[in-house]
Amino acid sequence: MNKQLLFVKRPVGEAGDDTWDLVSNPIPEPADGEILVKQHYISLDPAMRGWMNDAKSYIEPMAIGSVMRAGSVGEVIASKNSKFNVGDFVSGHGGVQQYITTDGKGYYTVDPKLAPLPTYIGTLGMPGMTAYFGILEVGKIKEGDVVLVSGAAGAVGSIVGQIAKIKGCTVIGIAGGAEKCDYITNELGFDGAIDYKNESVRNRLKELCPKGIDVYFDNVGGEILDIALTRLRLHARIVICGAISQYNNKMAVKGPSNYLSLLVNRATMQGMVVFDWAKRYGEAAQQMGMWMAQGKLKSKEDVYEGIENFPETFARLFTGNKMGKLVLKVIED
Amino acid sequence: MNKQLLFVKRPVGEAGDDTWDLVSNPIPEPADGEILVKQHYISLDPAMRGWMNDAKSYIEPMAIGSVMRAGSVGEVIASKNSKFNVGDFVSGHGGVQQYITTDGKGYYTVDPKLAPLPTYIGTLGMPGMTAYFGILEVGKIKEGDVVLVSGAAGAVGSIVGQIAKIKGCTVIGIAGGAEKCDYITNELGFDGAIDYKNESVRNRLKELCPKGIDVYFDNVGGEILDIALTRLRLHARIVICGAISQYNNKMAVKGPSNYLSLLVNRATMQGMVVFDWAKRYGEAAQQMGMWMAQGKLKSKEDVYEGIENFPETFARLFTGNKMGKLVLKVIED
Repeated sequence: MNKQLLFVKRPVGEAGDDTWDLVSNPIPEPADGEILVKQHYISLDPAMRGWMNDAKSYIEPMAIGSVMRAGSVGEVIASKNSKFNVGDFVSGHGGVQQYITTDGKGYYTVDPKLAPLPTYIGTLGMPGMTAYFGILEVGKIKEGDVVLVSGAAGAVGSIVGQIAKIKGCTVIGIAGGAEKCDYITNELGFDGAIDYKNESVRNRLKELCPKGIDVYFDNVGGEILDIALTRLRLHARIVICGAISQYNNKMAVKGPSNYLSLLVNRATMQGMVVFDWAKRYGEAAQQMGMWMAQGKLKSKEDVYEGIENFPETFARLFTGNKMGKLVLKVIED
Repeated sequence: MNKQLLFVKRPVGEAGDDTWDLVSNPIPEPADGEILVKQHYISLDPAMRGWMNDAKSYIEPMAIGSVMRAGSVGEVIASKNSKFNVGDFVSGHGGVQQYITTDGKGYYTVDPKLAPLPTYIGTLGMPGMTAYFGILEVGKIKEGDVVLVSGAAGAVGSIVGQIAKIKGCTVIGIAGGAEKCDYITNELGFDGAIDYKNESVRNRLKELCPKGIDVYFDNVGGEILDIALTRLRLHARIVICGAISQYNNKMAVKGPSNYLSLLVNRATMQGMVVFDWAKRYGEAAQQMGMWMAQGKLKSKEDVYEGIENFPETFARLFTGNKMGKLVLKVIED
């Protein structure tokens, strides 16, 4: 049987258990031109909370009753498509389920000998691509820049900071808790860390970036975005990648009161969606794979098990109770 | 005697009469290398309210007891500087006073035969330069763009909209009251107007820009910025030129709650300060002078009289009780 998690109720605020319904259906048969994929891992990303809302966005809202949308990686176990062979490992948007048939559009093969499978939905997948194009193309970092990143121990933020270090920037990360702060400075080589759960972000930012910041890569929005705005240098760039702190709001999003700092500092705030760079994913994966092989770029996945544990695992995205890229193993050994 | 308006008290909220003190002092004598200018007109701009605050900004806060800072235009009546002759007309930042001695730094000569003197502190001065570089260099308009501008009947907004029309854009202006809306559509050739004092900006914007907007040139901030954010097209640009609605706030500035529209639409919000283009003012003045001569660009100044009337004239910037560029004649005939 194929265990599937259906999206059955649009949440208001936090997505509770009643958002989804776990069902079992027969494993589907691939039609002509299709493949059958046995999924190993699915990706959990803050953006998924936005996909649940019935609002105009960069992607269609999820339909009620559909399989919960998610990136995934798995193995081709039957193929009626000449582009894929049985035994190939593939990544795509397979959703929160154990098996999927697909015509292969949006799927690409990955090599489990080069990197562990979860890395293909992390650093070599959507979060890594987001980090790569966000900091290089939108943030336009150059050597010597002071770069601030929030969600710094997360799937996107940890890669953003490491790329900025590779490019010769000074990098300060904001993360929740001493363990994450130790991780980004001691293991990833960030120049400084701010523990937003236990320190004053405003004061620490003054200490760590006395001359201000050139680039702020924002994953969280809210109060931290507002504080970052007070520390901009001339011609600073703010990359709006996400706003984790606001995704579960029942009320209006908190707008950045200090946005007039953009005027004072001739600064730019620009939004990004990773899909716009789809044609260049190969280039980015190759470069990041090389950095990983050279030991310059570290990838960390926090893997949980069991499709039935999706709701409690998903909640970790917003409590921060995880370390690195959040992944759920849905295959049963 | 030289009537001078001194800045004597930092206002909280609206600048009341006690912000300034009108004094009379002997007309100064120019030292070697200096000129004596008899000032005819001074410029009133919303940015002046910001200069009064004791806060880090793009320019030093005004010192208590100094002459109120202002752009001005006047006549050289004595010269000990070989670059300027008696009888020359010059523009610079002479402040709110009738006479000034200066070494001429930041002053340039203007020709009263080519344009009326008030135009040199309006369309051919700082507001015109702001409009020119803001819409062309920051807004990056191109033919066919849908352009929205707030403060559309004002010194900056009216020029922004006309330049966008010259460049082949569809232009919608937001202004307060039927008279201003008639002016921008009937006299200036805007494609549409929204009377924010009497109409729903949200509904009218949907009607007038059914496909959304490519560029929003923001002079006002607040609620109107937030509404504009809901109507962005892909890759839209927002030019943050000012925030008139927020300058007199006693509480925190209202941040744009809908800023995540930047993410959804891969849009950019960029701040600007006109001084950054100082080296290119000549180019802009020449181009705008040519457009004026060709009848493509109209300049309107609303001239009040009497240095003693500065406080009540200044208040018109924020009530909107004016038409076009606000100017005060400080010379006594």
